[in-house]
Amino acid sequence: MKTIVLAYSGGLDTSYCLTYLQKELHYEVHTVLVNTGGFDAAELEAIQERALALGSAKHTNLDIVDHYYEKAIKYLVYGNVLKNNTYPLSVSAERVFQAIETVKYAKSIGASALAHGSTGAGNDQIRFDLIFQTIAPEMEIVTPIRDLKLSRQEEMQYLQNNGVEYSWEKAQYSINKGIWGTSVGGKETLVSNLPLPDAAYPSQLQKEGTEKVTLQFEKGELTAINGVSDKPTANITKLEKLASAYAIGRDIHVGDTIIGIKGRVGFEAAAPIIIIKAHHLLEKHVLGKWQQYWKEQLGNWYGMLFHEGQFLDPVMRNIESFLEDTQKTVTGTVTVSLKPYHFSLDGITSAHDLMNSGFGQYGETNNAWSAEDAKGFIKILGNAQAIYSHVNDISYD
Amino acid sequence: MKTIVLAYSGGLDTSYCLTYLQKELHYEVHTVLVNTGGFDAAELEAIQERALALGSAKHTNLDIVDHYYEKAIKYLVYGNVLKNNTYPLSVSAERVFQAIETVKYAKSIGASALAHGSTGAGNDQIRFDLIFQTIAPEMEIVTPIRDLKLSRQEEMQYLQNNGVEYSWEKAQYSINKGIWGTSVGGKETLVSNLPLPDAAYPSQLQKEGTEKVTLQFEKGELTAINGVSDKPTANITKLEKLASAYAIGRDIHVGDTIIGIKGRVGFEAAAPIIIIKAHHLLEKHVLGKWQQYWKEQLGNWYGMLFHEGQFLDPVMRNIESFLEDTQKTVTGTVTVSLKPYHFSLDGITSAHDLMNSGFGQYGETNNAWSAEDAKGFIKILGNAQAIYSHVNDISYD
Amino acid sequence: MKTIVLAYSGGLDTSYCLTYLQKELHYEVHTVLVNTGGFDAAELEAIQERALALGSAKHTNLDIVDHYYEKAIKYLVYGNVLKNNTYPLSVSAERVFQAIETVKYAKSIGASALAHGSTGAGNDQIRFDLIFQTIAPEMEIVTPIRDLKLSRQEEMQYLQNNGVEYSWEKAQYSINKGIWGTSVGGKETLVSNLPLPDAAYPSQLQKEGTEKVTLQFEKGELTAINGVSDKPTANITKLEKLASAYAIGRDIHVGDTIIGIKGRVGFEAAAPIIIIKAHHLLEKHVLGKWQQYWKEQLGNWYGMLFHEGQFLDPVMRNIESFLEDTQKTVTGTVTVSLKPYHFSLDGITSAHDLMNSGFGQYGETNNAWSAEDAKGFIKILGNAQAIYSHVNDISYD
Amino acid sequence: MKTIVLAYSGGLDTSYCLTYLQKELHYEVHTVLVNTGGFDAAELEAIQERALALGSAKHTNLDIVDHYYEKAIKYLVYGNVLKNNTYPLSVSAERVFQAIETVKYAKSIGASALAHGSTGAGNDQIRFDLIFQTIAPEMEIVTPIRDLKLSRQEEMQYLQNNGVEYSWEKAQYSINKGIWGTSVGGKETLVSNLPLPDAAYPSQLQKEGTEKVTLQFEKGELTAINGVSDKPTANITKLEKLASAYAIGRDIHVGDTIIGIKGRVGFEAAAPIIIIKAHHLLEKHVLGKWQQYWKEQLGNWYGMLFHEGQFLDPVMRNIESFLEDTQKTVTGTVTVSLKPYHFSLDGITSAHDLMNSGFGQYGETNNAWSAEDAKGFIKILGNAQAIYSHVNDISYD
Repeated sequence: MKTIVLAYSGGLDTSYCLTYLQKELHYEVHTVLVNTGGFDAAELEAIQERALALGSAKHTNLDIVDHYYEKAIKYLVYGNVLKNNTYPLSVSAERVFQAIETVKYAKSIGASALAHGSTGAGNDQIRFDLIFQTIAPEMEIVTPIRDLKLSRQEEMQYLQNNGVEYSWEKAQYSINKGIWGTSVGGKETLVSNLPLPDAAYPSQLQKEGTEKVTLQFEKGELTAINGVSDKPTANITKLEKLASAYAIGRDIHVGDTIIGIKGRVGFEAAAPIIIIKAHHLLEKHVLGKWQQYWKEQLGNWYGMLFHEGQFLDPVMRNIESFLEDTQKTVTGTVTVSLKPYHFSLDGITSAHDLMNSGFGQYGETNNAWSAEDAKGFIKILGNAQAIYSHVNDISYD
Repeated sequence: MKTIVLAYSGGLDTSYCLTYLQKELHYEVHTVLVNTGGFDAAELEAIQERALALGSAKHTNLDIVDHYYEKAIKYLVYGNVLKNNTYPLSVSAERVFQAIETVKYAKSIGASALAHGSTGAGNDQIRFDLIFQTIAPEMEIVTPIRDLKLSRQEEMQYLQNNGVEYSWEKAQYSINKGIWGTSVGGKETLVSNLPLPDAAYPSQLQKEGTEKVTLQFEKGELTAINGVSDKPTANITKLEKLASAYAIGRDIHVGDTIIGIKGRVGFEAAAPIIIIKAHHLLEKHVLGKWQQYWKEQLGNWYGMLFHEGQFLDPVMRNIESFLEDTQKTVTGTVTVSLKPYHFSLDGITSAHDLMNSGFGQYGETNNAWSAEDAKGFIKILGNAQAIYSHVNDISYD
Repeated sequence: MKTIVLAYSGGLDTSYCLTYLQKELHYEVHTVLVNTGGFDAAELEAIQERALALGSAKHTNLDIVDHYYEKAIKYLVYGNVLKNNTYPLSVSAERVFQAIETVKYAKSIGASALAHGSTGAGNDQIRFDLIFQTIAPEMEIVTPIRDLKLSRQEEMQYLQNNGVEYSWEKAQYSINKGIWGTSVGGKETLVSNLPLPDAAYPSQLQKEGTEKVTLQFEKGELTAINGVSDKPTANITKLEKLASAYAIGRDIHVGDTIIGIKGRVGFEAAAPIIIIKAHHLLEKHVLGKWQQYWKEQLGNWYGMLFHEGQFLDPVMRNIESFLEDTQKTVTGTVTVSLKPYHFSLDGITSAHDLMNSGFGQYGETNNAWSAEDAKGFIKILGNAQAIYSHVNDISYD
Repeated sequence: MKTIVLAYSGGLDTSYCLTYLQKELHYEVHTVLVNTGGFDAAELEAIQERALALGSAKHTNLDIVDHYYEKAIKYLVYGNVLKNNTYPLSVSAERVFQAIETVKYAKSIGASALAHGSTGAGNDQIRFDLIFQTIAPEMEIVTPIRDLKLSRQEEMQYLQNNGVEYSWEKAQYSINKGIWGTSVGGKETLVSNLPLPDAAYPSQLQKEGTEKVTLQFEKGELTAINGVSDKPTANITKLEKLASAYAIGRDIHVGDTIIGIKGRVGFEAAAPIIIIKAHHLLEKHVLGKWQQYWKEQLGNWYGMLFHEGQFLDPVMRNIESFLEDTQKTVTGTVTVSLKPYHFSLDGITSAHDLMNSGFGQYGETNNAWSAEDAKGFIKILGNAQAIYSHVNDISYD
């Protein structure tokens, strides 16, 4: 009997896959849940129980939060990555790492096939398949949901026919949680004109007024919150807890999917948004103009390819080298004001701050250069435009 | 006696210039105030009176709001221009047009010189000089404030000595207003770590709760608010009034000045921020992936050169052609929710919406292609990565 | 009987298709040859005869050279498009237009299906399919060569079995000719290390010494050769004749195909290469620094999408607007020296030349600015670097 | 007496400076010649003698060829840097390093001032000043040629008056030689329309026919010529000798100077051009599509800032990290054919070659995917265009 590893989440689709792979395709199915920060111990245990009850030969929960941070989130912060200026790649980045870890597990047990529960109409199938076929071209990829195009009703009927009595109530909103944010899909995100209702978001407003939080960065990494040092993943979780009490970080991402259609998805990601905005502000003070320019180009490209599942494109490693090199001076503290539904950035302190460095102060009387220097600068700065205007006899009206 | 045209604002610096140019340099001084939407009729009249009282041979107020919109703001909207992802160029864009109009006026009266009141430590001197020397290379540029480096006290003393008794009280915050936003400078913006206090911003919170506003765009231009059509400049003003009651649009811009130092300036720009974000959302629905990508590149570049006073660089005209061409399908309505201190975008409707067009729906069962199509797509999409991984024997750990 | 339109070239593959579509799939086959400059009257007549002999219900030769220039080549010149810095898109651009015209013809006769003879391993299938499915989503696409994966021997046997006695001698090199260059494939281009032999190229060296040719451009278009005006397509043909006598314009293009594998193809394109290099030189004299910078970005992107068959992506129209707008001043004359196997550019004359405009002369004593101006310029230009170096205490070793 | 260090080349301008700095400004002048590969032992000795004869307190020749390679040329190869697609930065890169070494020398002897002999109309003043003021903001910069704007005649007269009897014959062409190429200026390069005559170039044609040369690269560095290993600088010199016998590598660079005017300069750089083109070809085989894309962006930017003297901008270090990271697989051998006045690239061999890797062969029958895979790929690849075309009812004519 051939062994297959199924990326299992405990939901209806992957439960259907688990049963179908055994009963119809006669695989020995090993299930694996790759936790990127979205499941607590109780949830993990419940999922494990369900997997085994449904006939998983072996279920494994893999906690990869720190690994995922080191290989992915870190660079998303370095690059200030917000897809379409909005979305911190909450789901897309974790899918890629779930796929990678699933393959690594499958190799470790000598499996001959891989399975996932994605449909044929979304981005997730691409993230899984691209990783699977690149890292394990020798393994077969089996995707019952994509192939059979069943309705939820049909899936439940099939499971019932096979003696599975679990009640698969459909939540009104489909929620996907990880350390880097939670996505929210529902009937409103299937159309263009409606916002998600407040109640659809996982966190609800619990506090009023303004609360100041300080974020300390060392070489681009979040190393302390309010002066208390901890590892970055712990700091992200801590900040998420603080900020979600203010219902911060909600938005809707509208984007071009990899398959060419437009998609819309809600998300709540208080910590990612605050961290990226704070990190970006710090960079405005400590990086040069062209460093910021090229970081933006490369960070956006990195985010785009990552979102589209092309994390293994070799240019991604080159961009990571670039981004890492830019972070040498990104050390300092940012003060953030949390308020109901939004936040603002107070300012920064940094030993690398390029403002107020003893050179001239913006708009004030300058000491580092003279009026004559400034006039000479502008005269020559304007040469090209003046020549162009003169040669081409441009009129301005 | 030689004639000089002075860009006059009614403030201490340009009042000093007006007097100095007459008394010390013996010019016949014509003053001109180029209004980009920051002055109402009463203010304009007061400034005119002051100019004449200070010895202006002739004072002229030029209202260029619509012209400025047509030649500049329109493209800032098309390009979703927010400098450093924050600042709508509230001051920088209007300075360029004040300079252009000042030269045109000077040419119309046959003046031989031009004057402005900027210091030698800021961006404004560059915006004025670059325009002056490009359009009117034959005219002398005279800049007493930059050349003499006087303190406010010295300027006031000089004016008093010359019989000017006006009281030049220094406001705690220096405010600069135009149709595309108001800048706010103060002691906090001279350092890196402090926010501006609430009271420093021109508008204060007057309303609670949520108010829905609809913005209608036609080919990228704001043609109606809440269903009422008007010209774009009127719509901007109307939206500013609605949104400033919620104290929306405050932020601090930190950027690299043209002279190489870092600068920080507060601003309040409710209408510009809302318009740009709403316009951007509409574009996410109606433009293709690569249209959005290149618009972002070119829009950011346009904003950078504009901010740096290089509006007459010939590439700017080429970028305007590009941006205009992208707006052919940017027609539709965006619903915005105004709330205290922030806003959110509900969604859009557009005949050009590329979402829900009868093709596959994101994440749902697809009709326009089969599971086999999707697998073939992903297989070939992954060819390059798979070959690279195979040839270079990459390991993933 | 359903009607299908086949893009027919007279070669073995499309002749097989013509027969197969009739005999096996029972279509009424209309053949169309879209001539982009690669066929002369005698060749066209021979192909037409063959098509009719093989059972084409109707054969049509469409001459689209001028249309193709107006919609495509013109922009390839504006953008100085050389894929991977080498290849003028000799085949890729014409395939797209052959596809477009084939669909237009099919619509004009009310056909219900489209056919092409491309294999499943190359770029051409993508160029044809993408155009077909975008412009005529209602028409079926039939591709026997791709579907059946036959060898040349099997195709010939099939044709013989069906009474076709034509002798299909296989040329040693597969040659593809159009107005914008000729591609050459052979056993050497299937490996990485071999050049094509001289004899594989269509033109052979016929002249020695140096011959001067002048190219006159008006707003970016080639309007005269050696002072004789003609329409651009005639000038291209004339220049090709002059330069191919020197065996100029040979090279091998190595690139990433749309399907992710690397491909290598030889080409000879004397006129395209000379025109692009001459046009580019003229632009170096008449365009500003940032115009050239952004033209290069957008021109390369345009070439990449065009090469990959994505000519109908809406960003392509936007880029064309940009490129066209940059050509307003690209008027002047370029002198080229033709020599055996290579050429050099002597220089240009243009009323828009930004060099020697009465401003300072490079490296010579300047008149338009003083030593003090230059020192002020450099001082302020260096501010940002000096501050960065100072704040971060950089050491240089 | 204050000590000044003068970057001395032995020519009229810097000889004038040497005398003037002593006699008029009463400096103790230390001369330094920073050799980047342009001077042989005899020339260095002659220059040293002249310096001492003219009153240099101490003359030092610094050989920095290997250091210059390691810090600069290496990255110019990695980035395939040809300014404006033509010029290998032959002069600009070495000027920057001459400036850096001059400062380091000045610091080592405790000098209080720095001098160079550049005029106020060129790029070199900027390269020297920017480095000087960034690394040694405490040192004064003295530039007699820029400040005094003397003619050659006046300089010679002054030297004669001061007892210097050396005969300063003006060469018809001003030649500037370094390991990365030789620049050639003359009366033809002061106008737009004339080529340099053959005789103006340093190397003349000495061989006929075709000579094959193999270049071996390891991680992007040229480690062997014709199978003989040596350090990269030795290989560059060896290749220059081989190729200059064919008079290869001549061209004229037209560019935008840092001061906004257009400049034109001839150059001969056989080894740099061949190395860059060969390296680039190798990369086309071993790098992915997006690696090449971003390398081109960043390489061009690196070249532009370097050319403009902004080598110390912090983004330059970040780009070097990026470029270095891309070279991990750039190992292989390129065969070049040298011919009179030009060269061609035969092909490459590399263990990292992504072509012919056992996956499908371009244009041939494919094995790694099926016709159905290809159709699925194209169908979904075209989704976005098809939707756009459908929603916007585009017509194609």
